[in-house]
Amino acid sequence: MKQVRIGLAGLGTVAQGVLSIIKNNSALIARRSGVQLVVSRVASRSTKPEVDLLGASFSTSLSDLYQDDVDIIVELIGGDTTAKELIEQALALGKPVVTANKAVIARYGTSLFSSNQNVPLKFEAAVAGAIPIVQAVQQGLVANRFDHVIGIINGTCNYILTAMEKRGMSFDEALAEAQALGFAEADPSSDVEGIDAAHKLTILLALAFDSAYDFSRVYVEGITKVTAEDIKYADELGYRIKHLGIVRSIEAGLEARVHPALIAKSQLLAHVDNEQNAVLVKSDAAGNTLFSGPGAGGAATASAVLADIVAVAQRIDDLEGAHAPQIEDGPPVVAMGDIVSAHYLRIPTLDQPGVFAEVAKALSSHNISIEAAIQKEPQAEQDAVAIVILTNETTENSINAALDQLSGLQYVAGDIARIRVESL
Amino acid sequence: MKQVRIGLAGLGTVAQGVLSIIKNNSALIARRSGVQLVVSRVASRSTKPEVDLLGASFSTSLSDLYQDDVDIIVELIGGDTTAKELIEQALALGKPVVTANKAVIARYGTSLFSSNQNVPLKFEAAVAGAIPIVQAVQQGLVANRFDHVIGIINGTCNYILTAMEKRGMSFDEALAEAQALGFAEADPSSDVEGIDAAHKLTILLALAFDSAYDFSRVYVEGITKVTAEDIKYADELGYRIKHLGIVRSIEAGLEARVHPALIAKSQLLAHVDNEQNAVLVKSDAAGNTLFSGPGAGGAATASAVLADIVAVAQRIDDLEGAHAPQIEDGPPVVAMGDIVSAHYLRIPTLDQPGVFAEVAKALSSHNISIEAAIQKEPQAEQDAVAIVILTNETTENSINAALDQLSGLQYVAGDIARIRVESL
Repeated sequence: MKQVRIGLAGLGTVAQGVLSIIKNNSALIARRSGVQLVVSRVASRSTKPEVDLLGASFSTSLSDLYQDDVDIIVELIGGDTTAKELIEQALALGKPVVTANKAVIARYGTSLFSSNQNVPLKFEAAVAGAIPIVQAVQQGLVANRFDHVIGIINGTCNYILTAMEKRGMSFDEALAEAQALGFAEADPSSDVEGIDAAHKLTILLALAFDSAYDFSRVYVEGITKVTAEDIKYADELGYRIKHLGIVRSIEAGLEARVHPALIAKSQLLAHVDNEQNAVLVKSDAAGNTLFSGPGAGGAATASAVLADIVAVAQRIDDLEGAHAPQIEDGPPVVAMGDIVSAHYLRIPTLDQPGVFAEVAKALSSHNISIEAAIQKEPQAEQDAVAIVILTNETTENSINAALDQLSGLQYVAGDIARIRVESL
Repeated sequence: MKQVRIGLAGLGTVAQGVLSIIKNNSALIARRSGVQLVVSRVASRSTKPEVDLLGASFSTSLSDLYQDDVDIIVELIGGDTTAKELIEQALALGKPVVTANKAVIARYGTSLFSSNQNVPLKFEAAVAGAIPIVQAVQQGLVANRFDHVIGIINGTCNYILTAMEKRGMSFDEALAEAQALGFAEADPSSDVEGIDAAHKLTILLALAFDSAYDFSRVYVEGITKVTAEDIKYADELGYRIKHLGIVRSIEAGLEARVHPALIAKSQLLAHVDNEQNAVLVKSDAAGNTLFSGPGAGGAATASAVLADIVAVAQRIDDLEGAHAPQIEDGPPVVAMGDIVSAHYLRIPTLDQPGVFAEVAKALSSHNISIEAAIQKEPQAEQDAVAIVILTNETTENSINAALDQLSGLQYVAGDIARIRVESL
C-alpha cells in the first residue's frame, strides 16, 4: 500500500483533530483510499501539549517540515504572515500543501496558485468547515455555469441570530452565550463584523467564477446593528434574518457581498440554525443545491483537512498530470451602489397624523414603492412609533438617497434600520 | 489539452442533457479540468431523435461503442438487462464506464466492481440526481466512520407527500398532479412503492459501510398507505411525514430500510419539500452534514454524469494508480423485527367510554407506553373516533404484536395506521 508522510504545522484544536482521526480511522481510510497516512513530523512554535503525536518527531521550528521524510505539509497554524511564508516555501520545494487558512487563501490565493501550477495547494477546510463545498463546486458541479452561491458561512453570527430569534436574547446576551459555549472567540470582531465570512466568500467567488482571490472586492457588513426588534418584525412579514455571503453573476458583472439579509421562511436556507453553516448553489444544469453542516470545530474541520490529504496522497505519484484551474480576469465586481434588492426598513417616527404618508412620499420620490408595511400603536404616549416597510427592488444608490431624505424629516425620531431582502 | 472521447449509450432525457451541457459548457469544463470532452459515438436502439449529436456518429447497435475511438462509455439506456451487459462488456474491454443506472448498481454492483478492479465504474447520477452525494461520502467524508445516512431520495414520493400536506390533496390527486408535471411516471409503482428509493439506499449502504451491493437486504415500504389525515395529525404533534431511506450502524449490525416516517419539524430534513431530494449524513468527525437538490430531471442528472466523466477523464492516463474501495463482508443487516423506533398509531375506535384505557392497556401489555396522544370528538354520531398515539421507542416485534392484539379488540372499528417515527 502507498504510504504518504505528513508534516503537520500547528497543534491547535484542528491539528489535534487531524491526529485523532488518523489515530482512530487510518485503517478505514487506507481501505477506502489505498493510502496509508503516516504523521512523520509535527512542528509548532508553542510548547508541545500533551497530545499523542502518533510517533512523529516534534520540533518548534517550522522549517523542520521541509525534510525529505515529509510528502505533504499540512498548515494549521493560522494567522496570515508565518502561515503564508510556510505555504510559499513548501510549494517552492515541490511539497503539496493542505491548509485550513481562509485568510491566506482569500488574500494571497492568486499568487500562490499562479506561481506553483504543478504543486497541489488544497483548502477544503477553509470554507464552511466539514462541508465538502470546495469539492462540490470544483468537481461535483464542474460542468455547471454558476448563477449564484449564497451561504451562511459564519457559525458565530448564525448562533447569535438564532438565539436572538428563538429565545428573544439581545445581541450582547447572545454573544456572551456563544463565547461561553466556544462558538465565539474572546475577541469576536472578525466574526461579528463579517471579516471571517468575507474571507470565505472571497474563496467561493474565485471558485465559482474561476476568478482571482481578491478579498478587497467583497463588500463587508456584520451583524452588530441587527436588533431583536428587527428579527421580530421580519418574522411577522414571513422572513428570517441571516448573515449571508453572496456571490452572484448578473449582466453587469459579479456581485460579492457579506451582510445580514431577510430570507423567506419558505426557503430551506432560512431553517439552518445555531452554529450550523450552509451554502446554497444555483447553477445552470444542477439547479439549486444546498450543502449544510458544522462550519467550525476541531474534528469537523479536521474531516475536511483529511479529505484534502487523501485526495493529494492518491495522486502524489502523478503531480505532473494534475490540472490547476485557470484563474481568469473575468467579469468585474459590480459597485455596491448598483446592486438591486428589496429592503426592510424600520423607521422610528413621532406619533402624529400623516407620518406614514410623508414616508411613502419620500420613498416614492426615489421611485421606491412599498410592498408590505407594519405600523403598531406606541406602547406609551411619548414613545416613537416604528413604521416597518418592505420596499420593492431598487438600487443601493436609490435606497441610500431615500434614507438620507427620510433621516432629515422632522417626524423621524431616531436611526433608521435597513436590512436587504435576499430573494433566492 | 487532453482530449477524451465519449461513447454515449441512450438518447433519453439524461443523455440529451449530457449533450446539451457539453455543447454549452465544454470550454468552461476544459478550463477548469484540463479535459476537452468529445462525443465520438452515440448509440441508441430507438430511432435517432432530432438532437444535436455534436458531430458524433450514430448507430442503433450498442456494440459500436466498443471501438478504439471511444475512451469512456456513458450508459444511459436504463433498465437492468441490456444495460448490465453493456457495462460488463465495456469494463472487460478496459473501457471506463459512467452510468446513472441505480438498478444495475444496486443489484450487480458487487460483481461489477470485483471483477474489474482497475477500470473505473462511476455512478454519481444513480443516487439523488444532481446532488454530489456519492463523492461526498467517498471523498469529502473519506476520513469518517458513518453513524447513519438518511435520505429523502425519491422525488415523486416527496412531491406527493408535500402536496398532501401543504395543499390538502388526497394521495390520488397528488399523484395525478405529479404525473401531469412529469414528476411521476405513467406507471408510478417503482416510485410510490419504494423500489426506486431502495435501489438508491442499497448504494448508500454499500458506500457508507464499505459493504456489498445487495438490494435484497433492504426493507421496502412505499407511501400508498399514508393518508391526508395522518399528515394532519403528525403536524399537530410537531412532525412531518417524509418517505425516507435509512441506513444506520447500531451495535447489532446495520439497519437498512425504506418507509414513510415522522420527523420533527425542528429538523432541516423536514423542510425539504416538493420534488427535492436530500441526504443527511452523520459521521464521527464531520457530525451532521446535509446535501439537498434536485433528485431527477435531464439536466440535473446530466450534471452528475458529467462530474463522473471529468473525474475519470482527468485520471485516464493513470488507471493503474486508481484505487477501488474494498468491499467487505461487514456487519449483518439487522432483521426488521429487531429495529427499535417510536411509532405513530391512528386507531379508529367506536365512540364508547373506556376505549382509550383499553388501548393503553393493550399497548402496556407489550411494554409500550404512550408519549403523546390526540383524541377528537366524532364528526357525526355514528363516526368512529380516531385515537392518535405516539409511542415510546420499541421493537418492531413488540409493536406488531401489540397491533395484532389491538386489531382484535371489539372497540376497534377499522384498520390501524402505523408510521415509524425517525429521531435524527
